[in-house]
Parts: sequence; C-alpha cells; structure tokens
Amino acid sequence: MSKQQRVMAGSLSEASVKESVLLKGWVQKRRDLGGLIFIDLRDASGVVQIVFNPDHSQRALEIAENIRSEYVVEVEGTVVKRDSSTVNPTMKTGKIEVIVSAITILNKAKTPPFAIQDKAEVSEDLRLSYRYLDLRRQPLQETFKLRHHITQAVRHYLNEQQFLEMETPILTKSTPEGARDYLVPSRVHQGEFYALPQSPQLFKQLIMMGGFEKYYQIARCFRDEDLRADRQPEFTQIDVETSFLTSDEIMQLTEEMMQFVMKEVKGIDISLPLKRMPYDEAMARYGSDKPDTRFGMELIHVGEIVKKSGFKVFQSAIESGGLVALLNVKQQAKTYSRKDIDKLTEFVKVYGAKGLAWLKVEGEELKGPIAKFISEEEKAGLMEKAQAENGDLLLFVADKTNVVYDSLGALRLKLGKELHLIDNTAYHFLWVTDWPLLEYDEEQGRYFAAHHPFTSPIESDIEKLATEPENVRANAYDLVLNGYELGGGSVRIHQVELQKKMFKVLGFSEADAQEQFGFLLEALEYGAPPHGGVALGLDRIVMLLAGRTNLRDTILFPKTASASDLLTNAPSEVDPSQLDELSIQLKSQNQDK
Amino acid sequence: MSKQQRVMAGSLSEASVKESVLLKGWVQKRRDLGGLIFIDLRDASGVVQIVFNPDHSQRALEIAENIRSEYVVEVEGTVVKRDSSTVNPTMKTGKIEVIVSAITILNKAKTPPFAIQDKAEVSEDLRLSYRYLDLRRQPLQETFKLRHHITQAVRHYLNEQQFLEMETPILTKSTPEGARDYLVPSRVHQGEFYALPQSPQLFKQLIMMGGFEKYYQIARCFRDEDLRADRQPEFTQIDVETSFLTSDEIMQLTEEMMQFVMKEVKGIDISLPLKRMPYDEAMARYGSDKPDTRFGMELIHVGEIVKKSGFKVFQSAIESGGLVALLNVKQQAKTYSRKDIDKLTEFVKVYGAKGLAWLKVEGEELKGPIAKFISEEEKAGLMEKAQAENGDLLLFVADKTNVVYDSLGALRLKLGKELHLIDNTAYHFLWVTDWPLLEYDEEQGRYFAAHHPFTSPIESDIEKLATEPENVRANAYDLVLNGYELGGGSVRIHQVELQKKMFKVLGFSEADAQEQFGFLLEALEYGAPPHGGVALGLDRIVMLLAGRTNLRDTILFPKTASASDLLTNAPSEVDPSQLDELSIQLKSQNQDK
Repeated sequence: MSKQQRVMAGSLSEASVKESVLLKGWVQKRRDLGGLIFIDLRDASGVVQIVFNPDHSQRALEIAENIRSEYVVEVEGTVVKRDSSTVNPTMKTGKIEVIVSAITILNKAKTPPFAIQDKAEVSEDLRLSYRYLDLRRQPLQETFKLRHHITQAVRHYLNEQQFLEMETPILTKSTPEGARDYLVPSRVHQGEFYALPQSPQLFKQLIMMGGFEKYYQIARCFRDEDLRADRQPEFTQIDVETSFLTSDEIMQLTEEMMQFVMKEVKGIDISLPLKRMPYDEAMARYGSDKPDTRFGMELIHVGEIVKKSGFKVFQSAIESGGLVALLNVKQQAKTYSRKDIDKLTEFVKVYGAKGLAWLKVEGEELKGPIAKFISEEEKAGLMEKAQAENGDLLLFVADKTNVVYDSLGALRLKLGKELHLIDNTAYHFLWVTDWPLLEYDEEQGRYFAAHHPFTSPIESDIEKLATEPENVRANAYDLVLNGYELGGGSVRIHQVELQKKMFKVLGFSEADAQEQFGFLLEALEYGAPPHGGVALGLDRIVMLLAGRTNLRDTILFPKTASASDLLTNAPSEVDPSQLDELSIQLKSQNQDK
Repeated sequence: MSKQQRVMAGSLSEASVKESVLLKGWVQKRRDLGGLIFIDLRDASGVVQIVFNPDHSQRALEIAENIRSEYVVEVEGTVVKRDSSTVNPTMKTGKIEVIVSAITILNKAKTPPFAIQDKAEVSEDLRLSYRYLDLRRQPLQETFKLRHHITQAVRHYLNEQQFLEMETPILTKSTPEGARDYLVPSRVHQGEFYALPQSPQLFKQLIMMGGFEKYYQIARCFRDEDLRADRQPEFTQIDVETSFLTSDEIMQLTEEMMQFVMKEVKGIDISLPLKRMPYDEAMARYGSDKPDTRFGMELIHVGEIVKKSGFKVFQSAIESGGLVALLNVKQQAKTYSRKDIDKLTEFVKVYGAKGLAWLKVEGEELKGPIAKFISEEEKAGLMEKAQAENGDLLLFVADKTNVVYDSLGALRLKLGKELHLIDNTAYHFLWVTDWPLLEYDEEQGRYFAAHHPFTSPIESDIEKLATEPENVRANAYDLVLNGYELGGGSVRIHQVELQKKMFKVLGFSEADAQEQFGFLLEALEYGAPPHGGVALGLDRIVMLLAGRTNLRDTILFPKTASASDLLTNAPSEVDPSQLDELSIQLKSQNQDK
C-alpha cells in the first residue's frame, strides 16, 4: 500500500468527489449485487459505502468476496457521486461512495454473537461479555463522546475559575462511618488494610487546610453496596472544594458550571439562578427530596379538611400525628377502572401505605367507595383545595408522614410517566436546601449524619445540637435534575470544637473519634480555613444528558448487579501464594482443616 | 464585616494604591515594631504585608496583638505605597502594604511543628505527618500548580487531536504476569478477588477493539512492590492508545505532545523530531537504557586493543566473551587521588564489577599500577581511541557485558554530577528503540516479556520467535528525559495466532493462557484493529519539570517507603466484622487458635 494519508470515512462528502482516498475501518455490512460488491465501511467517524467493481479491480473484488462483517480492512479508491436513484438520505455520506482500487485485510473476524447495529436486541449479559463489540454500536460511541465532552467542559469551566485539578489517594484509611468500604490487604503491614475511598471528602478538606483554595478532581469513588440499576461499585464524581466561600457562592459556582456544560454539550441555555427549595417544602409538595419538577400533580394536603371525617382512616391518621394527602389526577377518572386502581394500591403498598383511597369527580358529585363517608362540607373543602373538576381522579394516602410522602411521591412519578405528563426534552434543575443535619436510626438507637459527619449545621441551629438534634438543619444543598439527585455539597465544619461536638452527637467516644479522625481534629487546630464544596455524579449527568436510563451504558466497562465484570471475569480466584504474601486466608480454607 | 468582594493578596500592586480591600488568608509572620504590628498575610496567590496602626484602628491593633502564625483572618483595609526605605524588593507585593481598619479571626492555630517557609529543615516523616502544613509552603504550592498545568496541557493537546478521554476500571482481574498486584477481596463472590490495575493496558487495547480509535486517560496505576525513592504504590500515567498508527506515527504524536507541554508550562522550545537511539547503541555508548545525554564521557570500548594485553584481567574478560571499556575523565587526573579512586572502586563493586583499573595521562606517558602491563602499541591504541590528553584520567572496567555496562553507566552518572558536567537547565529528550522483546530469567528458567506480553515483535524478527527468542526485537520505544525513563510504548499484537505464539514462548500452557487471557484472545478474533500506544509517568514528568529529585514532592498525599500514609495512618487495622463479611481472616488469627 502507498504511504497516502488516511482519510476518515465520516468526513467524506460531495466536496470529496474525484479525490483518491485511503480508508481504514470495519466492515459493517456486505451486499453482493449483480457482480458488484457493496460494503458499508465503518470507522470511528462514521460510515461510507465502498464499491467493488470488476471494471476497476478484479483483484479487489475477489478479495471482497471473502470479506465478512467486522473484518478490518484498508482500502484505496476514488470518491464518486452516487446516482440520484441510489442516494441514501439516512446516511451522512449517502450522496457519495468510494470505488475501490485496492484492498488489504488487516484482520479477520468471526461472526459476532450480535450484530453491530444501533439497537442490539440481545441480553445485557451477552452485551457485557462482548463489551468491545457492544461499544462499536453507534449509540454507545455517541455516549462516550458525550461523556468526554462533558468532562472537558467541566474542566474548562473550573480551569477558567483558577481551580487546580489535584489527585487524592485511592489507597486510603478505612472509616466505618458511611457505606461499606472495599478493603485492600497490606503486604508490608500485615494484618492491616487500606480502603478504597467512598469519596475524596477528607482529602479535599485537607487540601483546603493545605492552603490550596480551589480544588477539583474527576474522582473515582468506591462503595461496596448492594447494587441497583443506578449504582455501580466504582463511580466517578466531579469533586470540588473551595475555601472562604459561603454556601450561596458555592451553589452559584456549581450552577454556572452546569450552565456552561449544558450550553457546550447540548446547546441548551439554562437560566440562573436555579430554583431553590427547602427540603421540607420538597417533601411536602412532591413527596421527594429530589423532585421531578417537569410536571405538576403535587401532593395536596387535606388533613385539616378531613381530620374529623366519617372515614375513620383519615381521622385516625391525623389523630396519630400523620398526614392525609392526595394527588389530583386531572381528567383521568375514566382512564382508571376499579381494577387499575387496585393495581395502584398494590404499588403504594410497596412504600408502606396500608391502602389507597380514591374518589372520582362526576359533575358536582364525588363517587367511589368512600364517598358515603365524606360530608358535604368536607367535599366542598376537598374540591376547592384540590381544584377538582368534573372528570378528575383523586387518590388519597392517609398514614405516617414518611409513608404518605414515599408512597404518593412514587405514585406521582409513576402516573407522570404513564400519562406522558413529562416533557422529555426539558431539563429542570433544582437546588434542595435546608436539609436535616442528622437522622435518627431506630435500630441502632443513635443519630447518623444525613450527609457526612463533616457537614456544618446552619449557624442559628448550632445551639440545638445538644438539645434537639433532629431539628438542626445542615448548611447543605443537593442539586436535582429531572428527579435525579446529581449530587450535593455543604459548608464543612472548620472549628475543632464544633467537630468534636458533632462526633459526640453521633455517639463517638472521645477515644473513638481520636482513633478514627484524629488527623482531622488535629488539622483543624492548625489554621483550617472556612471551606466547603460540592460533588456531582458524573455517570448520572452523562446518563441524563445522553437520554439514557441505564447507568451501565455510561460506564465503559461496567459491572453487573453482582459486581462482576463479565468481560474479563473479575473478580476471580487468585493464586494461594498471593494470599500467603498478604498473610490472609479464606475462611472456608480454615474450616476445612 | 461588609459584603465587599474579596481580593487576592498576590494580585495587589502599586496600581491598587488607595483601594479599599477585603483580604482573607493565613498569618505567615507577625512583627511588633514601635507600637505598630506588621503581618505578612498569605493566601493561595501570594503574600502581602498588612499594618496595624493605632491611628487607624485601636480595636484592630488589639486583636492583632493576640494573633499568631497560621491564624486564619479576614481583614479590611486600604492599600498604600510603602516609603522607599521600607520597600521589600524580594517580595512581589513589596512596594505596597495594607493599612488595616478591621480584622476578624476566622480560625486560630496552634504553633506548627515546623515553620511554613520555602525550605523546611525538618525530617520528611514530620512533613508527611503534617502534610497539610507542608503543602502550604511555596515550593509545594508551585509544584502542584505546575502539575495542574502539565495535566491540562496534555489534555489540551490530545483533545485537539480528537482523542477521547475515557475511564477504565480500578476493580479489575488479577493477572500474575508483571509486578505484584494489590488485591481487593470480593464480598459478593466470596473467595474471589479484584486486583487494582498495574496499568490500563488490556482495557485500552479493548477500547481499540471497541472501535474508539484515539483514547487517553490520566490513569492511576498500582504496584505492590518494594518502594524506592522514585516509586510509589500508586502512581499516575498519561495513557494513550490509537488504532491504525505505526510506531513512527505514535512516537511523532508523543513528541509533539511533549513539545506542546514544554512550551506551555516552561516556555521552552524543543526541536523535533527527537533523537532516536537503538537500545544496543544506548547500552554500548552510555551503559544505560535511559542515557543522560546532557553530557559526554561515553563508554570507550577498547577490547580490540587490549585483548592480548599483558594485563591479564583485560585479556581474560575478552576471552570469556566480556568487554573492556573505559571512561575518559577529561583533565581530572590530578583531582582524583589513589584514595579517591579506591572509593570509586567500591562504588563500581556495587554493580558487580570486580575492580576498577585506572591510568593517568602525564605528558606522553600513562601512569598507574597497571601501566607496566600495557605495551607501547596498546598505549598508542588506547590514547587514540580515548582521545586521551595530558591530565586525563582513564577508568577501566573489564568484565561480563552487563557488568561493564551497569558499573560504567553508573560511574559515568556519578562523575557527571560530581564534576558538574551536567547543564541543569537543559532538557534532553531521547527515544530508545529496538528493545529486546524478551528477557531470559535464569532463576525461573523461562523468558519474560521485557515490556509486557502484548508487545509486538518487529515484523522481520517474528520468525526468530521459536528459534532464537533472545534476538527478537520489539516494536517498542521508550522516551527518556535527562537520564530518566518517562515511559514508553509499543505497537501491540493484534493477531490472535501471534498472541498465542507469544504466550507459548512465555511458557504458558494453552489452558493457562485461556484461563488468564481468554477474553483477550477471543477479542482478537472479532476484528481487532492494528493498534499501539504509549504511557508516560506523570509524576516523573512533574518531578523533572519542577526541578525536584523526590517523587513524593510531586504527589499530593504520598506514601512512605513502607507504603504508609503518615497523615491518616493508612493502612490500619479494621473491624473484625469487616473481614467476616469478606469471608477472610488474618493468618495469625488462625495460628492463635
């Protein structure tokens, strides 16, 4: 072959006609037609049709006869315009084709277990086992290009703001507070372990104490938790920390970054400042701490109206300190039969609700099994509060506060999707603020940090730390997009006394706090600046901006729900000598002895 | 305090005079002088002097009296020009100072265990234990800014070349070929382990098989090896892989990237193409596979001249297939006494040399203990070959080839430093090419891959794989800077048959190859493109460009030679319940039972 410069398939157009080109790539598809062979040749830039014609090269045609899908080839040829009858308008290069003068097979390919097409109608396990084939498909190629562009846009914005990108360790110290750690046995210090970081939290705080005032990292994080569709054992976060900024300033910085990203990669203008909503309001209106505000159907609180209702379920919910709330499913009374509503009832039971009461508005009347218990006064109150009209369906849950929120919050989302109330082209960002600092765990009988133990309380609430910890709000903020939590942050504790108080509230003895976080407590004593930051899940941002629903499609080599890599077969057994060197052994080995 | 915009200390200059400013930062130093207090206030941008004067604010002065080093403060004041007598020319902001009108203490500080000065004359262990204080020092601040800029320059260059930045997994499969893996026990798959990647090698090859043609990553890598000053358990490499490029093209791309980095961060033009030198030549001329070409004093091979020498050591080295070579230490005959040379002899013995013969040129004569064995003809030959002149010192090693190279290579570097022959402002890049593909390990009685088992042989050498593997050269290249290996790369094997042959040469049974690398062998069968790449050590690049000698100064939170983090105290013991969940136990636990 000649030393000609390679040309990318996707770059060819009518402007290239008559050019002599060298192409390299994969055989997407071969068609034999009337003594000619047509191949769709694919490279990283796109696809072009190449034609083998005995008039041009009998030799090339003969080679092409043996070529099959996914062969890797190098071809020389000339770009020609297609006849108007053969123009392919669905193909970016569909107005031209390349007449081949020479071809070399660079590598052969067995028949792939699934076709390299936009839609792979095969099991995800098979796709993951042959991830390198899966990745050749256009939608995944596009997703990882998008991921690249999002990452570079984030960097670009933060670099312009004088942030420094810095790397924190992956081999770190295990701290029991938080999710489960992945452990790494030490060979040098036998019996001791590193932990993979759940986030660079403490290191980024130490960076602030190290006098760098603006840090960021696209950071790998690890959690050994049971996985769901939107969780992976290793994930990536956009990790940011600053000194001397208020929570307002950090939120502003974060939303300007997201504004820049949206403009750069999607061409979408989002207007700032982003909406903010206190946690309590988000729960009350949407039954969720990460509300999808792309549609309405908010929770309507009717406890005041029905607290003395003849329907005892309502009455007793209120009397025992709970709530009664409803969703007004506008104009859908006829859509949902009694059977359909039974299914919705089953759905809310998953969230702990004991039942789902309902009423349909027919003209001026309320119909349904509980209608007879509702007084005229209650009816008028409900109609007004719910802005109910003829044809509306009212769905009630009366229960403990968190059950009402969880069940109606989930039901709202389900109905929103089912009834196509959601504009899939919209991007609704929202800050949720004023989070509770602490959560009480009934089982363990102690408070846990709602975010992490380094989050600062809102200044005016600090005095409540000792007396009513459950009412202390955190100086924390979460960024929500379309009902997904992108991440969040907080202003951290920078005063050693407050940090010690916090550990005490969390049930740490002084010795325990010292043992686990002594280095932090000490660092706070040597001139720690006020600081705070934010961490956003990159994988989730990519997922939402790529319009995908599976987090695994945004990670190059993801793991399954059982944390396996089906391609390389990790984790796997290791040589016993490797364990000997680490001075560890498997428990079953021991039991065998 | 007012809501004024904060100003950075380092940004102040004569242009700021009369401005009212809000500053935040650390107290570098306090001086009391004639009823006034002067503080050097430091923030991430630099240092400015602030002055407390009772005429301006008695209150501020009183607060300042209690302020000590490393307190964090916020001050308001006015920029004024200094008297010419008090201008500090060593300080960037030395022409001005800030007269303080108000101050708030944001945090106090205990007296640090060492002063935050450019030079910390304390043990490295103490510095690492208080890394957050160490990081506040100017040289480290500068190093991590440089690291940031190098990283961004690399990204900028590769992004412009249409590379995609992609993330490969950290939880991977253990493969015994190579260095020792860090292992991570799996909780879900009990008895199985992940390994932390020694490099993304196989994943980047799989990315090429996934149809992405240009990949890069600033990738964290892990090796559980005994550490030296220039090794860390986790390190970062600039990891690049491409499809369809030749080794020449990959080298060109890499050197253009380094040229861009040098220009961007150091303002230095390096001219391309970089010099290339085959491995054999590097060894013969410099006794090193990573020669420091900033100075001469090359090895001079004199075996032909002294092969029949009366000095039996020379004669027998040649007869037994070894070498005789010398360094001509120009004009240093008088510098090195017999005692000095004895010390050099001890030095080369570390590298396996049995001795160091020497001759001094005095006028036309050679002097020294072995002079009497050297014939006139040999003398003339030596003088000419070594271009020896009056006053030169000739240092000989006669031994097995690798001993001669190792000992004279090391001696050359030692003398180069000792005699200040090295221009410390110079940057000498060099490609070392034509590496041997395999190395024979006497102990284990088999060949090992000199780079890794996926490196392709030079095409014309493939036939020697079965017959004389030791003479097969690799399609590999290493980039050397000032005597340090920055990294290297190769064109990989993309044909399944060749890869299988390679595993066979390395002593793998078919079953073993399948067990460990089955996924790769299979991937090679589904249309793997020709591909290759390069990986450069980022930490080392930062070290050399920052003019430092300790790799730990280039890593934010480094580990000691025993792989400990002295700041957080990792690794550490973990809760037995954590091990129970992983179904592993410590060996000593078992023995205690």
